[in-house]
Amino acid sequence: MRTPEEHRRRFEEHLRALELSPEIGALDEAVRYALDGGGKRIRPVLCLATAEAAGGDPDHALDAAAALELVHSFSLVHDDLPALDDDDERRGRPALHVRFGEAEAILAGDALLTAAFGLALRYDRADVGRELTEATAGMIGGQYLDVGGNGLDREALNRLKTGRLFEASVGCGLWVARRQDQAPWREFAAQYGRLFQIVDDLLDGDGLVEERGREATVDLGRQAEERARAALERIDADTSVLAELVDDLVARV
Amino acid sequence: MRTPEEHRRRFEEHLRALELSPEIGALDEAVRYALDGGGKRIRPVLCLATAEAAGGDPDHALDAAAALELVHSFSLVHDDLPALDDDDERRGRPALHVRFGEAEAILAGDALLTAAFGLALRYDRADVGRELTEATAGMIGGQYLDVGGNGLDREALNRLKTGRLFEASVGCGLWVARRQDQAPWREFAAQYGRLFQIVDDLLDGDGLVEERGREATVDLGRQAEERARAALERIDADTSVLAELVDDLVARV
Repeated sequence: MRTPEEHRRRFEEHLRALELSPEIGALDEAVRYALDGGGKRIRPVLCLATAEAAGGDPDHALDAAAALELVHSFSLVHDDLPALDDDDERRGRPALHVRFGEAEAILAGDALLTAAFGLALRYDRADVGRELTEATAGMIGGQYLDVGGNGLDREALNRLKTGRLFEASVGCGLWVARRQDQAPWREFAAQYGRLFQIVDDLLDGDGLVEERGREATVDLGRQAEERARAALERIDADTSVLAELVDDLVARV
Repeated sequence: MRTPEEHRRRFEEHLRALELSPEIGALDEAVRYALDGGGKRIRPVLCLATAEAAGGDPDHALDAAAALELVHSFSLVHDDLPALDDDDERRGRPALHVRFGEAEAILAGDALLTAAFGLALRYDRADVGRELTEATAGMIGGQYLDVGGNGLDREALNRLKTGRLFEASVGCGLWVARRQDQAPWREFAAQYGRLFQIVDDLLDGDGLVEERGREATVDLGRQAEERARAALERIDADTSVLAELVDDLVARV
Protein backbone atom coordinates (compact mmCIF):
# COMPACT_ATOMS: atom_id res chain seq x y z
CA MET A 1 0.00 0.00 0.00
CA ARG A 2 1.24 3.46 -0.86
CA THR A 3 1.84 6.04 1.84
CA PRO A 4 -0.04 9.35 1.71
CA GLU A 5 3.14 11.01 0.46
CA GLU A 6 3.52 8.44 -2.34
CA HIS A 7 -0.10 9.04 -3.38
CA ARG A 8 0.55 12.77 -3.37
CA ARG A 9 3.66 12.50 -5.51
CA ARG A 10 1.97 10.17 -7.99
CA PHE A 11 -0.92 12.61 -8.16
CA GLU A 12 1.32 15.62 -8.85
CA GLU A 13 2.91 13.73 -11.74
CA HIS A 14 -0.49 12.86 -13.12
CA LEU A 15 -1.75 16.43 -12.81
CA ARG A 16 1.32 17.86 -14.51
CA ALA A 17 0.99 15.47 -17.43
CA LEU A 18 -2.76 15.97 -17.72
CA GLU A 19 -3.96 17.18 -21.08
CA LEU A 20 -6.52 19.82 -20.35
CA SER A 21 -9.01 20.59 -23.08
CA PRO A 22 -7.14 22.05 -26.07
CA GLU A 23 -10.39 23.94 -26.65
CA ILE A 24 -9.71 26.44 -23.88
CA GLY A 25 -6.68 27.79 -25.72
CA ALA A 26 -4.92 30.69 -24.01
CA LEU A 27 -7.06 30.33 -20.90
CA ASP A 28 -4.80 27.39 -20.12
CA GLU A 29 -2.32 29.68 -18.34
CA ALA A 30 -4.88 30.88 -15.79
CA VAL A 31 -6.16 27.33 -15.31
CA ARG A 32 -2.63 26.09 -14.62
CA TYR A 33 -2.06 28.98 -12.22
CA ALA A 34 -5.11 27.85 -10.25
CA LEU A 35 -3.87 24.26 -10.17
CA ASP A 36 -0.23 24.98 -9.35
CA GLY A 37 -0.93 26.90 -6.17
CA GLY A 38 0.72 24.35 -3.92
CA GLY A 39 -2.42 22.94 -2.37
CA LYS A 40 -2.03 19.93 -0.11
CA ARG A 41 -4.02 17.72 -2.51
CA ILE A 42 -6.00 16.38 0.43
CA ARG A 43 -9.01 15.37 -1.66
CA PRO A 44 -7.03 13.53 -4.36
CA VAL A 45 -4.94 11.70 -1.76
CA LEU A 46 -8.11 10.73 0.11
CA CYS A 47 -9.59 9.41 -3.14
CA LEU A 48 -6.48 7.42 -4.10
CA ALA A 49 -5.99 5.99 -0.59
CA THR A 50 -9.66 4.99 -0.45
CA ALA A 51 -9.49 3.29 -3.84
CA GLU A 52 -6.46 1.27 -2.73
CA ALA A 53 -7.87 0.43 0.72
CA ALA A 54 -11.10 -0.70 -0.93
CA GLY A 55 -9.19 -3.15 -3.11
CA GLY A 56 -8.93 -1.10 -6.31
CA ASP A 57 -5.95 0.02 -8.36
CA PRO A 58 -5.08 3.54 -7.16
CA ASP A 59 -3.73 4.44 -10.59
CA HIS A 60 -7.17 3.81 -12.00
CA ALA A 61 -8.47 6.48 -9.61
CA LEU A 62 -6.07 9.18 -10.82
CA ASP A 63 -8.53 10.79 -13.25
CA ALA A 64 -11.21 10.87 -10.56
CA ALA A 65 -8.69 12.38 -8.13
CA ALA A 66 -7.80 15.04 -10.71
CA ALA A 67 -11.48 15.76 -11.32
CA LEU A 68 -11.96 16.32 -7.57
CA GLU A 69 -8.98 18.68 -7.43
CA LEU A 70 -10.26 20.61 -10.45
CA VAL A 71 -13.69 21.02 -8.85
CA HIS A 72 -11.99 22.18 -5.65
CA SER A 73 -9.88 24.68 -7.62
CA PHE A 74 -12.93 25.91 -9.54
CA SER A 75 -14.68 26.62 -6.26
CA LEU A 76 -11.71 28.55 -4.85
CA VAL A 77 -11.37 30.66 -7.99
CA HIS A 78 -15.05 31.62 -8.04
CA ASP A 79 -15.35 32.02 -4.27
CA ASP A 80 -12.42 34.47 -4.23
CA LEU A 81 -14.19 36.80 -6.71
CA PRO A 82 -15.09 40.30 -5.50
CA ALA A 83 -18.84 39.55 -5.73
CA LEU A 84 -18.42 36.50 -3.45
CA ASP A 85 -15.79 36.31 -0.70
CA ASP A 86 -13.61 39.04 -2.24
CA ASP A 87 -10.29 37.48 -1.28
CA ASP A 88 -7.18 38.96 -2.86
CA GLU A 89 -4.84 36.23 -1.76
CA ARG A 90 -4.84 32.48 -2.02
CA ARG A 91 -2.08 30.31 -0.56
CA GLY A 92 0.30 33.26 -0.32
CA ARG A 93 -0.11 34.33 -3.95
CA PRO A 94 -2.45 36.83 -5.61
CA ALA A 95 -5.89 35.31 -6.17
CA LEU A 96 -6.58 34.45 -9.78
CA HIS A 97 -8.85 37.46 -10.33
CA VAL A 98 -6.11 39.75 -9.01
CA ARG A 99 -3.41 38.19 -11.15
CA PHE A 100 -5.41 37.75 -14.40
CA GLY A 101 -8.55 39.90 -14.00
CA GLU A 102 -12.11 39.12 -13.10
CA ALA A 103 -13.28 38.00 -16.53
CA GLU A 104 -10.45 35.51 -16.76
CA ALA A 105 -11.19 34.24 -13.25
CA ILE A 106 -14.84 33.61 -14.07
CA LEU A 107 -13.94 31.84 -17.32
CA ALA A 108 -11.03 29.89 -15.80
CA GLY A 109 -13.37 28.62 -13.08
CA ASP A 110 -15.87 27.57 -15.73
CA ALA A 111 -13.10 25.83 -17.67
CA LEU A 112 -11.89 23.98 -14.55
CA LEU A 113 -15.39 22.73 -13.84
CA THR A 114 -15.88 21.63 -17.44
CA ALA A 115 -12.52 19.86 -17.53
CA ALA A 116 -13.38 18.10 -14.26
CA PHE A 117 -16.50 16.60 -15.80
CA GLY A 118 -14.48 15.67 -18.87
CA LEU A 119 -12.15 13.67 -16.64
CA ALA A 120 -15.05 11.93 -14.90
CA LEU A 121 -16.30 10.88 -18.34
CA ARG A 122 -13.12 8.91 -18.97
CA TYR A 123 -14.62 6.15 -16.84
CA ASP A 124 -16.84 3.68 -18.62
CA ARG A 125 -19.42 3.82 -15.85
CA ALA A 126 -21.35 6.93 -14.86
CA ASP A 127 -20.98 6.59 -11.07
CA VAL A 128 -17.84 8.73 -10.73
CA GLY A 129 -19.46 11.50 -12.78
CA ARG A 130 -22.69 11.33 -10.80
CA GLU A 131 -20.84 11.44 -7.50
CA LEU A 132 -18.99 14.51 -8.74
CA THR A 133 -21.97 16.44 -10.14
CA GLU A 134 -24.07 15.88 -7.03
CA ALA A 135 -21.26 16.94 -4.71
CA THR A 136 -20.55 20.00 -6.85
CA ALA A 137 -24.21 21.02 -6.81
CA GLY A 138 -24.17 20.68 -3.01
CA MET A 139 -21.04 22.83 -2.72
CA ILE A 140 -22.54 25.54 -4.91
CA GLY A 141 -25.75 25.43 -2.86
CA GLY A 142 -23.68 25.77 0.31
CA GLN A 143 -21.74 28.73 -1.03
CA TYR A 144 -25.04 30.38 -1.97
CA LEU A 145 -26.38 29.92 1.56
CA ASP A 146 -23.13 31.29 2.96
CA VAL A 147 -23.12 34.37 0.71
CA GLY A 148 -26.80 34.98 1.52
CA GLY A 149 -25.95 34.81 5.23
CA ASN A 150 -29.31 33.25 6.03
CA GLY A 151 -28.58 31.82 9.40
CA LEU A 152 -27.72 28.18 8.80
CA ASP A 153 -25.34 27.12 11.53
CA ARG A 154 -21.70 26.73 10.57
CA GLU A 155 -21.62 22.94 10.87
CA ALA A 156 -24.60 22.61 8.51
CA LEU A 157 -22.91 24.98 6.05
CA ASN A 158 -19.65 23.07 6.28
CA ARG A 159 -21.42 19.82 5.46
CA LEU A 160 -22.31 21.38 2.11
CA LYS A 161 -19.36 23.66 1.39
CA THR A 162 -16.56 21.29 2.31
CA GLY A 163 -18.24 18.05 3.39
CA ARG A 164 -19.79 17.16 0.06
CA LEU A 165 -16.51 17.12 -1.83
CA PHE A 166 -14.80 15.09 0.90
CA GLU A 167 -17.56 12.54 0.71
CA ALA A 168 -17.24 12.49 -3.07
CA SER A 169 -13.48 11.92 -2.72
CA VAL A 170 -14.15 8.75 -0.77
CA GLY A 171 -17.15 7.91 -2.97
CA CYS A 172 -15.14 8.13 -6.20
CA GLY A 173 -12.44 5.90 -4.69
CA LEU A 174 -15.12 3.35 -3.82
CA TRP A 175 -16.68 3.45 -7.28
CA VAL A 176 -13.30 2.92 -8.91
CA ALA A 177 -12.77 -0.09 -6.63
CA ARG A 178 -16.38 -1.18 -7.33
CA ARG A 179 -17.02 -1.45 -3.61
CA GLN A 180 -20.68 -1.80 -2.66
CA ASP A 181 -20.82 -1.69 1.18
CA GLN A 182 -20.27 2.05 1.33
CA ALA A 183 -21.96 3.18 4.56
CA PRO A 184 -19.00 3.07 7.00
CA TRP A 185 -16.67 4.54 4.37
CA ARG A 186 -19.06 7.43 3.86
CA GLU A 187 -19.41 7.98 7.58
CA PHE A 188 -15.61 8.13 7.73
CA ALA A 189 -15.62 10.66 4.88
CA ALA A 190 -18.20 12.85 6.62
CA GLN A 191 -16.23 12.92 9.88
CA TYR A 192 -12.89 13.38 8.12
CA GLY A 193 -14.29 16.34 6.17
CA ARG A 194 -15.69 17.77 9.38
CA LEU A 195 -12.34 17.35 11.13
CA PHE A 196 -10.58 19.01 8.21
CA GLN A 197 -12.78 22.10 8.49
CA ILE A 198 -12.47 22.23 12.28
CA VAL A 199 -8.67 22.07 12.06
CA ASP A 200 -8.72 24.77 9.40
CA ASP A 201 -10.87 27.01 11.59
CA LEU A 202 -8.63 26.39 14.61
CA LEU A 203 -5.56 27.36 12.58
CA ASP A 204 -7.20 30.48 11.13
CA GLY A 205 -9.21 31.43 14.22
CA ASP A 206 -12.37 31.89 12.18
CA GLY A 207 -15.52 29.95 11.23
CA LEU A 208 -16.48 27.67 14.09
CA VAL A 209 -13.97 29.34 16.44
CA GLU A 210 -15.74 32.66 15.91
CA GLU A 211 -19.18 31.08 16.23
CA ARG A 212 -18.60 28.82 19.26
CA GLY A 213 -15.25 29.68 20.79
CA ARG A 214 -11.97 27.78 20.68
CA GLU A 215 -12.69 25.31 23.45
CA ALA A 216 -16.00 24.13 22.00
CA THR A 217 -14.34 23.83 18.59
CA VAL A 218 -11.52 21.70 20.03
CA ASP A 219 -14.21 19.44 21.56
CA LEU A 220 -15.97 19.16 18.21
CA GLY A 221 -12.66 18.23 16.64
CA ARG A 222 -12.09 15.45 19.18
CA GLN A 223 -15.57 14.14 18.51
CA ALA A 224 -15.03 14.17 14.74
CA GLU A 225 -11.67 12.44 15.14
CA GLU A 226 -13.17 9.70 17.33
CA ARG A 227 -16.05 9.13 14.97
CA ALA A 228 -13.75 9.00 11.96
CA ARG A 229 -11.60 6.37 13.68
CA ALA A 230 -14.65 4.42 14.83
CA ALA A 231 -15.96 4.34 11.26
CA LEU A 232 -12.63 2.99 10.02
CA GLU A 233 -12.83 0.17 12.56
CA ARG A 234 -16.18 -0.88 11.14
CA ILE A 235 -14.68 -1.29 7.66
CA ASP A 236 -13.66 -4.77 6.62
CA ALA A 237 -10.38 -3.79 4.93
CA ASP A 238 -6.90 -2.50 5.75
CA THR A 239 -7.62 1.16 6.43
CA SER A 240 -4.26 1.97 8.00
CA VAL A 241 -3.41 4.61 5.37
CA LEU A 242 -6.75 6.33 5.93
CA ALA A 243 -6.01 6.30 9.67
CA GLU A 244 -2.69 7.94 8.84
CA LEU A 245 -4.57 10.70 7.03
CA VAL A 246 -6.51 11.34 10.24
CA ASP A 247 -3.21 11.45 12.18
CA ASP A 248 -1.84 13.99 9.69
CA LEU A 249 -4.87 16.26 10.09
CA VAL A 250 -4.74 16.10 13.88
CA ALA A 251 -1.01 16.84 13.82
CA ARG A 252 -1.67 20.16 12.08
CA VAL A 253 -3.00 21.78 15.27
CA MET B 1 -41.94 12.86 -37.78
CA ARG B 2 -42.58 15.73 -35.41
CA THR B 3 -42.59 19.30 -36.66
CA PRO B 4 -40.18 21.82 -35.13
CA GLU B 5 -43.07 23.28 -33.14
CA GLU B 6 -44.00 19.84 -31.78
CA HIS B 7 -40.39 19.28 -30.72
CA ARG B 8 -40.38 22.68 -29.05
CA ARG B 9 -43.58 22.01 -27.12
CA ARG B 10 -42.42 18.58 -26.02
CA PHE B 11 -39.15 20.13 -24.89
CA GLU B 12 -40.88 22.86 -22.85
CA GLU B 13 -42.90 20.19 -21.04
CA HIS B 14 -39.76 18.21 -20.32
CA LEU B 15 -37.88 21.25 -19.07
CA ARG B 16 -40.74 22.29 -16.77
CA ALA B 17 -40.95 18.81 -15.24
CA LEU B 18 -37.18 18.49 -14.92
CA GLU B 19 -35.93 17.85 -11.42
CA LEU B 20 -32.92 20.04 -11.00
CA SER B 21 -30.42 19.08 -8.31
CA PRO B 22 -32.13 19.34 -4.91
CA GLU B 23 -28.63 20.19 -3.68
CA ILE B 24 -28.75 23.74 -5.02
CA GLY B 25 -31.57 24.65 -2.65
CA ALA B 26 -32.73 28.25 -2.80
CA LEU B 27 -30.55 28.93 -5.82
CA ASP B 28 -33.26 27.12 -7.75
CA GLU B 29 -35.22 30.35 -8.22
CA ALA B 30 -32.37 32.08 -10.06
CA VAL B 31 -31.71 28.96 -12.12
CA ARG B 32 -35.37 28.81 -13.16
CA TYR B 33 -35.33 32.51 -13.99
CA ALA B 34 -32.45 31.85 -16.37
CA LEU B 35 -34.28 28.96 -18.01
CA ASP B 36 -37.70 30.61 -18.27
CA GLY B 37 -36.55 33.59 -20.27
CA GLY B 38 -38.53 32.64 -23.36
CA GLY B 39 -35.64 31.53 -25.51
CA LYS B 40 -36.45 29.96 -28.84
CA ARG B 41 -34.97 26.60 -27.77
CA ILE B 42 -33.15 26.41 -31.09
CA ARG B 43 -30.44 24.05 -29.81
CA PRO B 44 -32.82 21.57 -28.13
CA VAL B 45 -35.09 21.50 -31.18
CA LEU B 46 -32.06 20.94 -33.41
CA CYS B 47 -30.98 18.06 -31.16
CA LEU B 48 -34.42 16.43 -31.07
CA ALA B 49 -35.00 16.83 -34.81
CA THR B 50 -31.57 15.38 -35.55
CA ALA B 51 -32.16 12.40 -33.27
CA GLU B 52 -35.44 11.64 -35.04
CA ALA B 53 -34.07 12.20 -38.56
CA ALA B 54 -31.15 9.90 -37.72
CA GLY B 55 -33.56 7.12 -36.78
CA GLY B 56 -33.60 7.55 -32.99
CA ASP B 57 -36.43 8.13 -30.55
CA PRO B 58 -36.61 11.90 -30.01
CA ASP B 59 -37.93 11.39 -26.47
CA HIS B 60 -34.71 9.60 -25.64
CA ALA B 61 -32.86 12.80 -26.64
CA LEU B 62 -34.81 15.04 -24.25
CA ASP B 63 -32.21 14.94 -21.46
CA ALA B 64 -29.44 15.75 -23.93
CA ALA B 65 -31.55 18.59 -25.33
CA ALA B 66 -32.07 19.93 -21.81
CA ALA B 67 -28.35 19.64 -21.09
CA LEU B 68 -27.63 21.72 -24.20
CA GLU B 69 -30.14 24.38 -23.15
CA LEU B 70 -28.65 24.51 -19.65
CA VAL B 71 -25.15 24.98 -21.04
CA HIS B 72 -26.49 27.73 -23.31
CA SER B 73 -28.21 29.41 -20.34
CA PHE B 74 -25.07 29.09 -18.21
CA SER B 75 -23.08 30.88 -20.90
CA LEU B 76 -25.61 33.71 -21.17
CA VAL B 77 -25.71 34.23 -17.40
CA HIS B 78 -21.92 34.40 -17.07
CA ASP B 79 -21.40 36.40 -20.29
CA ASP B 80 -23.84 39.06 -19.10
CA LEU B 81 -21.80 39.69 -15.93
CA PRO B 82 -20.24 43.15 -15.47
CA ALA B 83 -16.71 41.73 -15.77
CA LEU B 84 -17.55 40.14 -19.12
CA ASP B 85 -20.06 41.67 -21.58
CA ASP B 86 -21.80 43.76 -18.90
CA ASP B 87 -25.29 43.40 -20.31
CA ASP B 88 -28.16 44.54 -18.11
CA GLU B 89 -30.90 43.04 -20.20
CA ARG B 90 -31.54 39.63 -21.66
CA ARG B 91 -34.57 38.88 -23.82
CA GLY B 92 -36.41 41.98 -22.63
CA ARG B 93 -35.97 41.23 -18.92
CA PRO B 94 -33.30 42.28 -16.42
CA ALA B 95 -30.21 40.09 -16.74
CA LEU B 96 -29.83 37.60 -13.91
CA HIS B 97 -27.08 39.60 -12.16
CA VAL B 98 -29.32 42.68 -12.21
CA ARG B 99 -32.34 40.82 -10.88
CA PHE B 100 -30.57 38.63 -8.26
CA GLY B 101 -27.12 40.16 -7.79
CA GLU B 102 -23.70 39.25 -9.10
CA ALA B 103 -22.89 36.54 -6.56
CA GLU B 104 -26.13 34.73 -7.36
CA ALA B 105 -25.47 35.05 -11.09
CA ILE B 106 -22.02 33.50 -10.80
CA LEU B 107 -23.36 30.65 -8.66
CA ALA B 108 -26.50 30.13 -10.75
CA GLY B 109 -24.30 29.83 -13.85
CA ASP B 110 -22.13 27.29 -12.04
CA ALA B 111 -25.25 25.38 -10.97
CA LEU B 112 -26.64 25.36 -14.53
CA LEU B 113 -23.38 23.97 -15.88
CA THR B 114 -23.25 21.31 -13.18
CA ALA B 115 -26.87 20.31 -13.75
CA ALA B 116 -26.20 20.06 -17.49
CA PHE B 117 -23.45 17.52 -16.90
CA GLY B 118 -25.73 15.68 -14.50
CA LEU B 119 -28.28 15.33 -17.30
CA ALA B 120 -25.67 14.06 -19.73
CA LEU B 121 -24.75 11.38 -17.19
CA ARG B 122 -28.25 9.94 -17.38
CA TYR B 123 -27.17 8.20 -20.57
CA ASP B 124 -25.50 4.86 -20.17
CA ARG B 125 -22.82 5.75 -22.69
CA ALA B 126 -20.33 8.60 -22.27
CA ASP B 127 -20.60 10.04 -25.80
CA VAL B 128 -23.30 12.62 -25.01
CA GLY B 129 -21.32 13.87 -22.01
CA ARG B 130 -18.08 14.03 -23.98
CA GLU B 131 -19.74 15.91 -26.82
CA LEU B 132 -21.09 18.38 -24.27
CA THR B 133 -17.87 18.95 -22.27
CA GLU B 134 -15.76 19.46 -25.39
CA ALA B 135 -18.25 21.92 -26.88
CA THR B 136 -18.50 23.78 -23.57
CA ALA B 137 -14.72 24.06 -23.30
CA GLY B 138 -14.66 25.45 -26.84
CA MET B 139 -17.36 28.00 -26.00
CA ILE B 140 -15.49 29.16 -22.91
CA GLY B 141 -12.25 29.41 -24.90
CA GLY B 142 -14.11 31.49 -27.51
CA GLN B 143 -15.55 33.82 -24.91
CA TYR B 144 -12.07 34.28 -23.47
CA LEU B 145 -10.66 35.21 -26.89
CA ASP B 146 -13.56 37.61 -27.40
CA VAL B 147 -13.13 39.32 -24.02
CA GLY B 148 -9.38 39.57 -24.61
CA GLY B 149 -10.07 41.21 -27.97
CA ASN B 150 -7.02 39.62 -29.54
CA GLY B 151 -7.83 40.01 -33.16
CA LEU B 152 -9.36 36.70 -34.19
CA ASP B 153 -11.76 37.38 -37.01
CA ARG B 154 -15.45 37.28 -36.17
CA GLU B 155 -16.18 34.08 -38.12
CA ALA B 156 -13.41 32.21 -36.29
CA LEU B 157 -14.76 33.48 -32.96
CA ASN B 158 -18.29 32.49 -33.88
CA ARG B 159 -17.16 28.95 -34.68
CA LEU B 160 -16.15 28.67 -31.03
CA LYS B 161 -18.66 30.88 -29.23
CA THR B 162 -21.80 29.68 -31.01
CA GLY B 163 -20.68 27.04 -33.49
CA ARG B 164 -19.45 24.51 -30.98
CA LEU B 165 -22.76 24.20 -29.17
CA PHE B 166 -24.69 23.93 -32.44
CA GLU B 167 -22.41 21.12 -33.53
CA ALA B 168 -22.91 19.46 -30.15
CA SER B 169 -26.68 19.77 -30.57
CA VAL B 170 -26.51 17.74 -33.75
CA GLY B 171 -23.80 15.51 -32.29
CA CYS B 172 -25.87 14.60 -29.23
CA GLY B 173 -28.85 13.79 -31.45
CA LEU B 174 -26.62 11.48 -33.49
CA TRP B 175 -25.20 9.75 -30.41
CA VAL B 176 -28.69 9.14 -29.05
CA ALA B 177 -29.64 7.61 -32.42
CA ARG B 178 -26.31 5.72 -32.44
CA ARG B 179 -25.58 7.03 -35.89
CA GLN B 180 -22.01 6.50 -37.08
CA ASP B 181 -21.70 8.30 -40.45
CA GLN B 182 -21.58 11.73 -38.88
CA ALA B 183 -19.58 13.86 -41.33
CA PRO B 184 -22.40 15.39 -43.44
CA TRP B 185 -24.54 15.91 -40.33
CA ARG B 186 -21.71 17.79 -38.67
CA GLU B 187 -21.11 19.86 -41.79
CA PHE B 188 -24.82 20.72 -41.70
CA ALA B 189 -24.48 21.67 -38.01
CA ALA B 190 -21.50 23.93 -38.71
CA GLN B 191 -23.28 25.78 -41.50
CA TYR B 192 -26.55 25.99 -39.58
CA GLY B 193 -24.74 27.48 -36.57
CA ARG B 194 -22.98 29.92 -38.86
CA LEU B 195 -26.27 30.90 -40.47
CA PHE B 196 -27.84 31.38 -37.05
CA GLN B 197 -25.14 33.83 -36.01
CA ILE B 198 -25.25 35.69 -39.31
CA VAL B 199 -29.03 36.11 -39.04
CA ASP B 200 -28.62 37.28 -35.46
CA ASP B 201 -26.01 39.85 -36.49
CA LEU B 202 -28.21 41.05 -39.39
CA LEU B 203 -31.15 41.52 -37.01
CA ASP B 204 -29.04 43.33 -34.39
CA GLY B 205 -26.77 45.20 -36.80
CA ASP B 206 -23.66 44.14 -34.90
CA GLY B 207 -20.95 41.46 -35.05
CA LEU B 208 -20.28 40.57 -38.66
CA VAL B 209 -22.36 43.52 -39.91
CA GLU B 210 -20.05 45.90 -38.04
CA GLU B 211 -16.94 44.04 -39.17
CA ARG B 212 -17.77 43.52 -42.86
CA GLY B 213 -20.87 45.55 -43.70
CA ARG B 214 -24.42 44.42 -44.32
CA GLU B 215 -24.03 43.36 -47.93
CA ALA B 216 -21.06 41.09 -47.32
CA THR B 217 -22.86 39.59 -44.33
CA VAL B 218 -25.96 38.86 -46.44
CA ASP B 219 -23.66 37.09 -48.92
CA LEU B 220 -22.10 35.03 -46.15
CA GLY B 221 -25.59 34.10 -45.02
CA ARG B 222 -26.55 32.89 -48.50
CA GLN B 223 -23.36 30.84 -48.64
CA ALA B 224 -24.05 29.27 -45.23
CA GLU B 225 -27.64 28.50 -46.23
CA GLU B 226 -26.56 26.84 -49.48
CA ARG B 227 -23.91 24.77 -47.74
CA ALA B 228 -26.32 23.70 -45.01
CA ARG B 229 -28.83 22.54 -47.63
CA ALA B 230 -26.13 20.82 -49.66
CA ALA B 231 -24.98 18.92 -46.55
CA LEU B 232 -28.56 17.77 -45.91
CA GLU B 233 -28.74 16.41 -49.44
CA ARG B 234 -25.70 14.25 -48.80
CA ILE B 235 -27.38 12.61 -45.80
CA ASP B 236 -29.05 9.26 -46.39
CA ALA B 237 -32.17 9.93 -44.29
CA ASP B 238 -35.34 12.04 -44.31
CA THR B 239 -33.95 15.43 -43.31
CA SER B 240 -37.05 17.44 -44.21
CA VAL B 241 -37.53 18.73 -40.66
CA LEU B 242 -33.92 19.90 -40.53
CA ALA B 243 -34.50 21.69 -43.85
CA GLU B 244 -37.52 23.32 -42.25
CA LEU B 245 -35.27 24.61 -39.46
CA VAL B 246 -33.11 26.26 -42.12
CA ASP B 247 -36.25 27.80 -43.67
CA ASP B 248 -37.25 29.16 -40.26
CA LEU B 249 -33.87 30.80 -39.73
CA VAL B 250 -33.86 32.39 -43.15
CA ALA B 251 -37.43 33.67 -42.62
CA ARG B 252 -36.27 35.69 -39.60
CA VAL B 253 -34.53 38.30 -41.78
